[in-house]
Amino acid sequence: MVDYIGVSDILRLVRREGTGHFISRLADEIERDYGRWGDFEKSARLASHSAAGVIELMPTSDGNLYSFKYVNGHPKNTAAGLLTVTAFGVLADVKTGYPMLLSELTVTTALRTAAMSALAARYLARSDSRVMALIGNGAQSEFQAIGFHRMLGIRELRLYDTDPKATEKLQRNLRAMPDLHDLHIVRASSSSDACKGADIVTTVTADKRNAIILTPPMILPGMHLNAVGGDCPGKTELHPDILRMSNISVVVEYEPQSRIEGEIQQMDSQYPVTEFSDLARGVSSGRVNASQVTVFDSVGFALEDYSALRFLHQLLHEERGAARQIDLVPELDDPKDLYGGTLGGRAPARLRKTA
Amino acid sequence: MVDYIGVSDILRLVRREGTGHFISRLADEIERDYGRWGDFEKSARLASHSAAGVIELMPTSDGNLYSFKYVNGHPKNTAAGLLTVTAFGVLADVKTGYPMLLSELTVTTALRTAAMSALAARYLARSDSRVMALIGNGAQSEFQAIGFHRMLGIRELRLYDTDPKATEKLQRNLRAMPDLHDLHIVRASSSSDACKGADIVTTVTADKRNAIILTPPMILPGMHLNAVGGDCPGKTELHPDILRMSNISVVVEYEPQSRIEGEIQQMDSQYPVTEFSDLARGVSSGRVNASQVTVFDSVGFALEDYSALRFLHQLLHEERGAARQIDLVPELDDPKDLYGGTLGGRAPARLRKTA
Repeated sequence: MVDYIGVSDILRLVRREGTGHFISRLADEIERDYGRWGDFEKSARLASHSAAGVIELMPTSDGNLYSFKYVNGHPKNTAAGLLTVTAFGVLADVKTGYPMLLSELTVTTALRTAAMSALAARYLARSDSRVMALIGNGAQSEFQAIGFHRMLGIRELRLYDTDPKATEKLQRNLRAMPDLHDLHIVRASSSSDACKGADIVTTVTADKRNAIILTPPMILPGMHLNAVGGDCPGKTELHPDILRMSNISVVVEYEPQSRIEGEIQQMDSQYPVTEFSDLARGVSSGRVNASQVTVFDSVGFALEDYSALRFLHQLLHEERGAARQIDLVPELDDPKDLYGGTLGGRAPARLRKTA
Repeated sequence: MVDYIGVSDILRLVRREGTGHFISRLADEIERDYGRWGDFEKSARLASHSAAGVIELMPTSDGNLYSFKYVNGHPKNTAAGLLTVTAFGVLADVKTGYPMLLSELTVTTALRTAAMSALAARYLARSDSRVMALIGNGAQSEFQAIGFHRMLGIRELRLYDTDPKATEKLQRNLRAMPDLHDLHIVRASSSSDACKGADIVTTVTADKRNAIILTPPMILPGMHLNAVGGDCPGKTELHPDILRMSNISVVVEYEPQSRIEGEIQQMDSQYPVTEFSDLARGVSSGRVNASQVTVFDSVGFALEDYSALRFLHQLLHEERGAARQIDLVPELDDPKDLYGGTLGGRAPARLRKTA
């Protein structure tokens, strides 16, 4: 039997921990895994494009555990009442090839993206950062807010979205969270207004185009830019002149993938970047002085989903007994007799027991 | 909610049809899909190798439906009481990117491999074929026997395996099938003995090496060779001199993949082969005369799993109501409010109904 985490299970698991604590624990797992970067088999995602969107498979392995994520991106889905992004994934045992866990990853991807953003900011933002602009107030925005409040100590959020309803929704959700009672929320009138006085600027907009959410005049010395929304070819958020500023440091997850999908798709192939694993391994320092502008050019890498699946599997087993299981793989008395143990009618031992 | 076919469901669905009828219907679906070969996005599988085995993802899409299969191959698993090969797969809607069906594919892969073998033999074997050698009597062998009995009219099977217990198991399973009452079963003393008088020779051995199961002296004019067991780099069953015989015609599924994984990995890149889609589309004829030796160099292609998943989904819906579903994807009242509709506590409409 294969462990299963559906939508109802992920809500139970995250609520048990508390969302902020869950994000923080997950960030620790991700940090540990980036710290052993060399252990991982890395490849760019395998994408199937259509007029309506993209379906991707993101596999990785550390030689002990294998994972993959299925994720789609369909910008027009919301018009039909559907999510733009849905995801699920599998954790498997490399030694036997057997799947161990099938899990929803729609909610989890939002949590792990926030965990990764806050983790990168812990290396890159000034340690006295308290004010964050949050531009793009859609599906991911609450998770970013919770992660930065918890892990960075952000106490003022400056919200902006071209759609005022999105900001209202975010504000409503944030105000309903008891953990965020000490968070001061400001509604800004523009992206530029949102950036005023911000130590960190998080962009998490959804338009699939080379958008210009941030321009050089909005960027102040010492800012950290957490650029989450630009994550596929033709989808960026930063004016390229920001990337050309002097005294800037750009960090990516997996360079070959980010050259295609990240903000740096706007720059030539020689444009200097640092991989996050160099920070996690202490090979490279993030920010070098208080006036430097730092950028986390986030696109999401398979390792983060691996960390999330392994962490979920661990949480599931801490529960002892609450885990649901599915009969995705036959269990046979004689593994050499597939027919006899299935269609041949001699029911496998395990199915007999649970029937 | 996503439709789910577990091991217990596949047994119910196949038994409802009867295994032979199921294989035959599935072969029709596969034939139809190979007939529109140009519609499919094709890529070689994405493999993750380890010392113990391999884990592969096999995606494809026809622009309307997307599918992928997860499949492992771990030759030493049986020693630990586990299957060498397990598999599962997903069918998704290209327009929305939403997964529609998660299904077991361990049993299904055995069924679709037999369906594909028998389908290819319908184009390649002599129409008066009645005798088949079945060399390699492991997990796949019953399925091949059922498929060729049903679809080709095979009435004598000549069995051989280096492990007599495997042949005993196969014989026992075949004798328990009422549909095969008219099948004459002969136990051969060697591969060579099995080939005597055979119209079709099916090799479905499991050793991961360049094995030589068949040599030129065993091959008679007019034979069709269904070479199933050689299916990855370093794993072949035919002596290369067979492939060098004059008056031979070799058919493969997807040429770029078969050059790496099939029997033809033993030949240079110019070695002439025909893709099965050319037969299905009537562009090329299979067998040209009764004395020609034909080979189906089978490795398994993603299209066949696509056909199987689509067929299973159709069977599931013919049942009306018996389908199980899993909550793999959130269903929200407002798709722009992922947090509010999940962790934020306003339970999504669908979960409320089914809770």
